[in-house]
Amino acid sequence: MPRSAFHFKLQLFITFLTFILSQSSCSSCPINVWPKPRTFSWPNPQANPLSPSFQIISPSHFYLSKAISHYLNLINTEHHLPLVRPFVNFSSSSPPLRALRITVYDLVTPLQHGVNETYTLTIPSSGGTASLAAQTAWGAIWGLETFSQLVWGSPSRVAAGVYLLDKPLFPHRGLVLDTSRNYYGVEDIKRTIMAMGANKMNVFHWHITDSHSFPLVIPSEPELSSKGSYGSEMVYTPDDVKEIVEFGLSHGVRVVPEIDSPGHTGSWAEAYPEIVTCANMFWWPAGSDSLDKLAAEPGTGHLNPLNPKTYEVLKNVIADVVKLFPEPFYHGGADEIIPGCWKADPAIQSFLSNGGTLSQALETFVNSTFPFIVSLNRTVVYWEDVFLDDLIKVNSSCLPPEHTILQTWNNGPNNTKKLVDAGYRVIVSSAEFYYLDCGHGDFVGNNSRYNQPPGSDPGNGGSWCGPFKTWETIYNYDITYGLSEEEAKLVLGGEVALWSEQADPTVLDSRLWPRSSAMAEALWSGNKDEKGVKRYAEATDRLNEWRYRMVRRGIAAEPIQPLWCVRNPGMCNTVHPI
Amino acid sequence: MPRSAFHFKLQLFITFLTFILSQSSCSSCPINVWPKPRTFSWPNPQANPLSPSFQIISPSHFYLSKAISHYLNLINTEHHLPLVRPFVNFSSSSPPLRALRITVYDLVTPLQHGVNETYTLTIPSSGGTASLAAQTAWGAIWGLETFSQLVWGSPSRVAAGVYLLDKPLFPHRGLVLDTSRNYYGVEDIKRTIMAMGANKMNVFHWHITDSHSFPLVIPSEPELSSKGSYGSEMVYTPDDVKEIVEFGLSHGVRVVPEIDSPGHTGSWAEAYPEIVTCANMFWWPAGSDSLDKLAAEPGTGHLNPLNPKTYEVLKNVIADVVKLFPEPFYHGGADEIIPGCWKADPAIQSFLSNGGTLSQALETFVNSTFPFIVSLNRTVVYWEDVFLDDLIKVNSSCLPPEHTILQTWNNGPNNTKKLVDAGYRVIVSSAEFYYLDCGHGDFVGNNSRYNQPPGSDPGNGGSWCGPFKTWETIYNYDITYGLSEEEAKLVLGGEVALWSEQADPTVLDSRLWPRSSAMAEALWSGNKDEKGVKRYAEATDRLNEWRYRMVRRGIAAEPIQPLWCVRNPGMCNTVHPI
Repeated sequence: MPRSAFHFKLQLFITFLTFILSQSSCSSCPINVWPKPRTFSWPNPQANPLSPSFQIISPSHFYLSKAISHYLNLINTEHHLPLVRPFVNFSSSSPPLRALRITVYDLVTPLQHGVNETYTLTIPSSGGTASLAAQTAWGAIWGLETFSQLVWGSPSRVAAGVYLLDKPLFPHRGLVLDTSRNYYGVEDIKRTIMAMGANKMNVFHWHITDSHSFPLVIPSEPELSSKGSYGSEMVYTPDDVKEIVEFGLSHGVRVVPEIDSPGHTGSWAEAYPEIVTCANMFWWPAGSDSLDKLAAEPGTGHLNPLNPKTYEVLKNVIADVVKLFPEPFYHGGADEIIPGCWKADPAIQSFLSNGGTLSQALETFVNSTFPFIVSLNRTVVYWEDVFLDDLIKVNSSCLPPEHTILQTWNNGPNNTKKLVDAGYRVIVSSAEFYYLDCGHGDFVGNNSRYNQPPGSDPGNGGSWCGPFKTWETIYNYDITYGLSEEEAKLVLGGEVALWSEQADPTVLDSRLWPRSSAMAEALWSGNKDEKGVKRYAEATDRLNEWRYRMVRRGIAAEPIQPLWCVRNPGMCNTVHPI
Repeated sequence: MPRSAFHFKLQLFITFLTFILSQSSCSSCPINVWPKPRTFSWPNPQANPLSPSFQIISPSHFYLSKAISHYLNLINTEHHLPLVRPFVNFSSSSPPLRALRITVYDLVTPLQHGVNETYTLTIPSSGGTASLAAQTAWGAIWGLETFSQLVWGSPSRVAAGVYLLDKPLFPHRGLVLDTSRNYYGVEDIKRTIMAMGANKMNVFHWHITDSHSFPLVIPSEPELSSKGSYGSEMVYTPDDVKEIVEFGLSHGVRVVPEIDSPGHTGSWAEAYPEIVTCANMFWWPAGSDSLDKLAAEPGTGHLNPLNPKTYEVLKNVIADVVKLFPEPFYHGGADEIIPGCWKADPAIQSFLSNGGTLSQALETFVNSTFPFIVSLNRTVVYWEDVFLDDLIKVNSSCLPPEHTILQTWNNGPNNTKKLVDAGYRVIVSSAEFYYLDCGHGDFVGNNSRYNQPPGSDPGNGGSWCGPFKTWETIYNYDITYGLSEEEAKLVLGGEVALWSEQADPTVLDSRLWPRSSAMAEALWSGNKDEKGVKRYAEATDRLNEWRYRMVRRGIAAEPIQPLWCVRNPGMCNTVHPI
């Protein structure tokens, strides 16, 4: 055991002893931390003044230092006023907390999947110096966030007599943002990442491109964005990407790029019409049935798997994306291959009439790209469709589990089970629970559905994945539902998703927050209390507080209750099953 | 006929002749005006430069002058770029438009229900001076809005060769905002009013108070807000009200106050516990059935109709509100009287055991307040419940139709018909079509509904009035559905409503817009084309444009489609009934 790891384990042991000795833990703490820490001991809730000259002492680490600047500023200026007066003993004449000393045992390990995120935090009741210890800088960043949430009031006070040991249940806690259907500025993305870090979410899954626009500037293929983006002001340059990636690292958030292909690539046709089948066609021709659609939704176009030029362009894209994003995961998409789109191409038609199948065409595509991505030291993430689609899918031999992670979105826990049973590591984004865009109706135009006589059954209002996912729906979902303990080990975590048919910067924050916070806590410390009972009722009050605190931090999270409910905990509950 | 009215009619006649002579009208105009004008003739779409020294010449009128300042600034600085390039002939060397001359025939009539809103607008193809003529200043303000939407580009150009005659189908086009469950700042309200005016909506129905908070400062009863508001920073002072009312007048928007009573008054108990029954109790006691609820939702409290002190306080409130709001409509609420709340009071219990009924108690309340409101020269608006509730309602003799308007929200067109058949003027706010808060789940805490096994039927996600009302749902609703022509005359118009259980300033704009715009157009010029066919498909493209223009004006309206759809009109349509 290396010396640093030994020290860290010793520290954990000491903290554990402190818990045992502290007699009572804090199951419903007078000061809120979101997501709720795994163990949080505060036997005699007390607060001390935060010294006006409060400082943070830390070893040198490029990103941790940036995080410290961020948090020091936040701690000194936030002055959060809890909405419910906390039951905490406070005397302004108590000895102030003057410093937080950070110890990190491993300053080398980069932010990556599975990195040790554990931290311990000790704030003495006697003022002076608090201690934050972590194996890695990334755990230390989470500790800083927790510390910042234990500071409130004006002048600032800080929880004292607190001992915390914290680490996540799941290593992958992410958020998908689609920046193709509508564009988001760099500041919108940075604000989202900042909010993710505040919720200890660690993966920004950036669904950068799709059929609607190609906003990423690819240095070796500049025409993809110059012709395929929504405009020269609506692109992400290499400098923008660097800024976002670096911002992510200083907030504990990995940025995983997704270049969706071979489906969802209509926008590529603006630069390379010859590599895209069925581009710019009407998505669902009149008189045809559902199987003859050219796309899952308006915006047609698939990369042509039989055209060598496709791979020339795509490999340039992949190589540049790998250079732009240091992250070891590369998301290749591979969802929603629509038969009608490939069938619209003469070369594919002749391949099919010679006995070929669309699944073979997809295998050609995967076999021509997957090994290349792996050769660049990337683990490939695909949507589940590539393996589970009813019509077009590849054999598992094309997708060696050691290099492949599959992301599930259909069929709730059933598909999760199918994937782990096939030996794949899984990221859960069940549309039934984790799709944040659902419930706002359908976006297609000329829709007679909304012209029914009054009194007609409106169904789910036209949202394919409706109803709207409330924060409780998200909070209560167990992403390993129905799995054995062994199977569950392959579930890396989950990602909420915001698809942007009906979203853009005007609604970004309110669609994401605080509902993403619900997943953040469920994957960090679970959704159950010490007795194994779902804790959504208790979480309501804490999430209300946390939502207001996020708003003060510049994140326009939507309210979940009237302020009256927030101030009168329990009074807006129901005691009836509804 | 007064001379000014004669002139106005002459002007209308001349404009009408111009239409006839212009051969073709503009059914799908290359420049969008929302709501679509009733008649809009632009036979040869052409644009001229807007002179850099463009000015507006107008008679003197306090509010019209304010509107002119607003629009002159907007016209000179907006530089809207249409998302779809308009098919308009433009030459920068054409003669510029130098001025807009406004003629108003009646400068005296105040903004009130039924005021003449007609205007005509003529922009000559030869540059020079355009003409806006209206019977009243309020019609002229609408003409200014229309004119502003006919200006675009940088440098600015303006539609030319345009002749417009415009007036609304319904005189009452409103929006309800609940500022009690959550608070909105004065700037939020002013921005909402500005957006309403831009959509030619003319009634801001301000649901100021409710059980959750009492934010309105009542000079004669200051404790109602000092104790009943959410805090000293979350009130509306008389100066705030004056600012809002004046702002409304300069945007063509009346501000109708609602002081909901006798239900929805829990917040009054902070100052006067003795006049409120069941205040601050748990809203739905365990072990009781739905009929024993104390409130329709958390937040209990009804004014006690049998306590003389109730009327002492309430009449002070009414008298002050009437002073604060010059508007001739006064909304008294009177919805959702919950039996359990009144039954919780000993005096009411004894009244009931002596043979009294809850409906008699409500009649006492109405008879003690309605005549007082009428004596202050106000028309009383109530929610339909006071007359249509299953359990507690008053006889029509208490509600003389000449002084009463009823606002319907339940049961779609059926209740509209019941009300007009009883001889009442009606404002339509059907929850099935016009409630903007629906579809975001339930807000009560501790709700086991959201803890079902995966695969369970989620129903409508717990939203009592779900699903979410899409803009098309709102647009397509005919508020006189099922009525005879004679009955339809009693329908004054409609109001969309935003109740604030799950809304506050963070989501205000995106919940309201552009969905309120859908009602605005349907009530202004209808939802059908010249052939009587619902025009929602064509409206999609126009609403997309208008939504982007609103965003540029500082209103964070939500997107209804990907930008790709906006730029490729028709490509995101469906030709299949879904």
